[in-house]
Amino acid sequence: MSEELLLHPDRLFSADPTQRSIARRLYQTIKDLPIVSPHGHTDPKWFAQNECFSNATELLVKPDHYLLRMLFSQGITLESLGIGKNREGVESDPKKSWKIFAEHYYLFQGTPTSLWLDYVFVNVFNLTERLCAENADSHYDTITACLQQDDFKPRALFERFNIEVIATTESAIDDLTYHQQILDSGWSGKIITAFRPDNVIDPEFEGFEENLSILADMTGINLETYSGYLESLKVRRQYFKKMGATSTDHGHPTARTLDLTEQECDALYSKIRSQQYSGEEADQFRAQLLTEMAKMSVEDGLVMQIHPGVYRNHNQDLFDNFGRDKGADIPVATEYVENLRPLLNKFGNNPKFSVIVFTLDETTYARELAPLAGHYPALKVGPAWWFNDSPEGMRRYRQQITETAGFYNTVGFNDDTRAFLSIPARHDVARRMDCVFLAELVSDHRISEQQAEKIAYDLTYGLVKKAYKL
Amino acid sequence: MSEELLLHPDRLFSADPTQRSIARRLYQTIKDLPIVSPHGHTDPKWFAQNECFSNATELLVKPDHYLLRMLFSQGITLESLGIGKNREGVESDPKKSWKIFAEHYYLFQGTPTSLWLDYVFVNVFNLTERLCAENADSHYDTITACLQQDDFKPRALFERFNIEVIATTESAIDDLTYHQQILDSGWSGKIITAFRPDNVIDPEFEGFEENLSILADMTGINLETYSGYLESLKVRRQYFKKMGATSTDHGHPTARTLDLTEQECDALYSKIRSQQYSGEEADQFRAQLLTEMAKMSVEDGLVMQIHPGVYRNHNQDLFDNFGRDKGADIPVATEYVENLRPLLNKFGNNPKFSVIVFTLDETTYARELAPLAGHYPALKVGPAWWFNDSPEGMRRYRQQITETAGFYNTVGFNDDTRAFLSIPARHDVARRMDCVFLAELVSDHRISEQQAEKIAYDLTYGLVKKAYKL
Amino acid sequence: MSEELLLHPDRLFSADPTQRSIARRLYQTIKDLPIVSPHGHTDPKWFAQNECFSNATELLVKPDHYLLRMLFSQGITLESLGIGKNREGVESDPKKSWKIFAEHYYLFQGTPTSLWLDYVFVNVFNLTERLCAENADSHYDTITACLQQDDFKPRALFERFNIEVIATTESAIDDLTYHQQILDSGWSGKIITAFRPDNVIDPEFEGFEENLSILADMTGINLETYSGYLESLKVRRQYFKKMGATSTDHGHPTARTLDLTEQECDALYSKIRSQQYSGEEADQFRAQLLTEMAKMSVEDGLVMQIHPGVYRNHNQDLFDNFGRDKGADIPVATEYVENLRPLLNKFGNNPKFSVIVFTLDETTYARELAPLAGHYPALKVGPAWWFNDSPEGMRRYRQQITETAGFYNTVGFNDDTRAFLSIPARHDVARRMDCVFLAELVSDHRISEQQAEKIAYDLTYGLVKKAYKL
Repeated sequence: MSEELLLHPDRLFSADPTQRSIARRLYQTIKDLPIVSPHGHTDPKWFAQNECFSNATELLVKPDHYLLRMLFSQGITLESLGIGKNREGVESDPKKSWKIFAEHYYLFQGTPTSLWLDYVFVNVFNLTERLCAENADSHYDTITACLQQDDFKPRALFERFNIEVIATTESAIDDLTYHQQILDSGWSGKIITAFRPDNVIDPEFEGFEENLSILADMTGINLETYSGYLESLKVRRQYFKKMGATSTDHGHPTARTLDLTEQECDALYSKIRSQQYSGEEADQFRAQLLTEMAKMSVEDGLVMQIHPGVYRNHNQDLFDNFGRDKGADIPVATEYVENLRPLLNKFGNNPKFSVIVFTLDETTYARELAPLAGHYPALKVGPAWWFNDSPEGMRRYRQQITETAGFYNTVGFNDDTRAFLSIPARHDVARRMDCVFLAELVSDHRISEQQAEKIAYDLTYGLVKKAYKL
Repeated sequence: MSEELLLHPDRLFSADPTQRSIARRLYQTIKDLPIVSPHGHTDPKWFAQNECFSNATELLVKPDHYLLRMLFSQGITLESLGIGKNREGVESDPKKSWKIFAEHYYLFQGTPTSLWLDYVFVNVFNLTERLCAENADSHYDTITACLQQDDFKPRALFERFNIEVIATTESAIDDLTYHQQILDSGWSGKIITAFRPDNVIDPEFEGFEENLSILADMTGINLETYSGYLESLKVRRQYFKKMGATSTDHGHPTARTLDLTEQECDALYSKIRSQQYSGEEADQFRAQLLTEMAKMSVEDGLVMQIHPGVYRNHNQDLFDNFGRDKGADIPVATEYVENLRPLLNKFGNNPKFSVIVFTLDETTYARELAPLAGHYPALKVGPAWWFNDSPEGMRRYRQQITETAGFYNTVGFNDDTRAFLSIPARHDVARRMDCVFLAELVSDHRISEQQAEKIAYDLTYGLVKKAYKL
Repeated sequence: MSEELLLHPDRLFSADPTQRSIARRLYQTIKDLPIVSPHGHTDPKWFAQNECFSNATELLVKPDHYLLRMLFSQGITLESLGIGKNREGVESDPKKSWKIFAEHYYLFQGTPTSLWLDYVFVNVFNLTERLCAENADSHYDTITACLQQDDFKPRALFERFNIEVIATTESAIDDLTYHQQILDSGWSGKIITAFRPDNVIDPEFEGFEENLSILADMTGINLETYSGYLESLKVRRQYFKKMGATSTDHGHPTARTLDLTEQECDALYSKIRSQQYSGEEADQFRAQLLTEMAKMSVEDGLVMQIHPGVYRNHNQDLFDNFGRDKGADIPVATEYVENLRPLLNKFGNNPKFSVIVFTLDETTYARELAPLAGHYPALKVGPAWWFNDSPEGMRRYRQQITETAGFYNTVGFNDDTRAFLSIPARHDVARRMDCVFLAELVSDHRISEQQAEKIAYDLTYGLVKKAYKL
């Protein structure tokens, strides 16, 4: 039974009439500001080659781990969604996979996924019915037909979405070919990269040794010594910076940092390179490297981002058969106060250093991160991340961060997504939820509406540009 | 000074008129659905023998650890409430104990206990004044007189409460006599059991060795070997299943699971049986047994429930003098991601397996349990439990679980109580709070009211029947 | 651009008209109750000498670590605020420091600091514009001029603020001269002390050995033995009690307690005094001393307060250059269930004992502290503390504590401040937020307005007097 699909103009605003009217007025002042997307995972190839996206399933279902996760949790196999090359029983008809997704779209009620997708269905594809089994085929056809048109090509969508700048994320050993192609093309869209060195910093990353060989080749530097190794990372950072990067990103299991002596570093590096290290030593190495990255940030001005606290690939069988990023990453409790101290004691008061820290452990918002960000000049708190990039997640974020860190030790919104079409939807949810929070502060007279307007602008546009040096 | 006691028809609904009217409409559609109670601690003897409950104090005060806890915290001795056989100074007049309770009933303001009891006072006993010192005696008399009537006997109340099915919980070595009596009686009320093997699985449980002897006797199986031990548990599970059980329940200190080799299991079992084990080994044994229970669930289809994270009998003096379940159990921080991984890696993707995980550590809702339940096909999150079985607890539960796990990786409500008379009150609070949550989603246009109606039905009735195979 | 500064009479009350009108009515019944301030850090010298406060910067900026913290986080140096004697570049003109503060006053939007300061600006100094760069000088002049007047002297303000009693906090080796002066002066204001022995209990406190020498001198007791050491503490407690103290206060890194044998205590004390102890042994000593303090509380009736869970002086460089209390203390995860058990098993059921436990780790409210306070007769939960002394912090406190511990295992509000002028503002925020919480319970019919009125009185006045024996 299909239901009409409407995006209510007041969606996410409080039902209370006073708060709703304030939120509405605030939202009017920011809703059309350009999108600044300083951290995400769109594919630069899209913008370099500007080819049509193929079909609804390839674009909207298969790459979205939020979707895969939820469908899998209800017994839908990845094979039936067309995932898992060379496996038996992989569905080859994307329309059939889309149908399965549509039949289970009800699972996403009350989750941000439905907010994002409904926004895309209405605003990008002009669909007027909520997705369900009955309209699965026609929705598939409509979307897929649209995607063949010029104005649904990546660059056209980028412009239509009013994106001022978007940062992709590339590994330290990526050659940034696509970014070069974009620059060479003369297209005005601003696509920058971000330096993500996990695969050459984490000894336990798949292919670490091989990655170091590539790094040595790329930089022409001998990586036998720790100083050579650090030098090669500096060189790559320089290259990323030249290609537009303003930030680095670090996805570590924990927020641990260390400040070892030169001698200790040399000895540890030797162990790592000889592949004779314990789990603890691998962890020490990652911890020391965060401090080294901070040091390089002081020198080259790249803003550091730390994204810790995820148990990656928790489902061994799924990982063995389908690889990474299939929805089996699970957050864990994460400690910041002890862990960040070595780094902060070295660079936390340094006006040339800036580090943005994220968390999936909301217990640290009020207890650890807001107090740290509300004290150290170098530290800012990143926005509600991943599982918490949602209306209730954002509400908790503002409620738990603001009273200690204020608004000005935060950095605006990150969409952090590879789901390109959802970017405007995600920013819209963030803008609305900021207005909801501000409207409450105005309605109970904690701030004036005049103050709220200025803050709304800063949360949407001012802070992100400043924090990421854009 | 006694005050009128009214159950407002809109109680617990938001004061906001838009949300309140939506909640009211949703509630109308579910309020009369039968009660399905898949997990609880009512005494099957009540339904087997169908005798009158004795008096207000015996029924409502003495067995309720929520009451004992709060009264004790304010200096009321358990003796004065008539608890503690053979101790000096134990009050023998239940009416005097009731008076003490009534004098301190104000302590429960703002707690779920007063919501539940006021509901019972009004709906079961037609009382019209809030309980206080002045009306303590007359309330006692009214309640106690009612209890002597036929329509206040257990079976009559069961029917009056519109309970479709209720599960009690019995130890693995319980002979289920009362369940057999109920079955033999021809009464139509559906009272099933649940298999709770803690006292034969946890080496540190009081009487563990003695319990194993009973288990051996009951099953005629030699428990000298680990395989014999497992076999005996299988046999008991079969018996419970034959008597109507659809689930098992496991009240462990932590959620730790292990997947040891056969050899390791044999060695560990030997140590346990020789009573030469460390605390760590006892913990390993419990952890391994959870995985064994999961394996048996795959085979026999019983749904597994894990209730971890309580420091039992925290107050040593109270335990020594009065025993278990007197309100001195305290929750502790509980970890699920590492702890459940061995079990989930073995059976988490198995369509024949179903495990419902509970927590008293709300920090794990958004961080651990929703992501796990939103990924693993076998895992569902149990409802807000025990200390969190309350309006604010339920609100936090939905706010922190839904955006990641959706509604359909949850399992409806559990009353988990031995306070039989409070069962309708507890389900009513849960139904109302679900309507409150849904009304907010509707009022800010995250879902439509049509969607909310269907979800309300599923949260109340559909999901619990499905999750518990009822 | 300066904006009008108004204190809306309904500030902090919900925008919902039903809730707002209930909150308003409740607030009317408690807003003029005297302030009872049982725990804080005002300087008794102020009341002893009753001299004028010097100027706006000295009074309102320099001693307030909430201000310093936030300003420092945005790159304002402490030197520019006039802090750091003997350092280069310390601003000597307080008006210039005030200007810097005013320019950055926008940072405090949405934080309790602006609620408190705006209240002070309006109610104490009759200012009518929100502080900003443009009016910085005139505000400074107005405030500083006021401070020269007799009715802005400490005693006059104390009376104007309607403070019934205020407790300061002094170290165990403080001679309480100023308290004696106040007593001798015949002034009617009630200023009492509280016994804070951290610096003679924590072996890792700066100057511990020296402090013990002073303690020995003060008491004339030989501290070579553990029993002598304990005796000296008893003597000091007696002196504090004689000078009006009704409580002790303990600011430990964790909530750990121990119950060692006499022999173990003697041996541990020897190690501590020989300065041959490990970090673990220092921790054991602190843990044992909490239990000793509890024992003395049973004897002398002083109410015990435990304030654990802060990483003090996290910023090493700042500490080395500027010392303590400059805004670099960061909360850490804190465990109560295991840690408090030795103490609670010894004295938790003792009707002569009373301990008030605080936390900066809100995850323990519902999980640990409410269950503990809702069981042990001796234990009460302290109010939302420090970083959580804020509207949202107080809301979470009531939402997470009340359903398990009720209202009557809490102890009213603590302002815990050295910012004397902000005391009425802080109590006003607490009173308003209690009314907000109660109004919600009334509006959704969990309690009646009649009940709420009585509770509001108790939360504001009754409970604090009872809990602190005032």
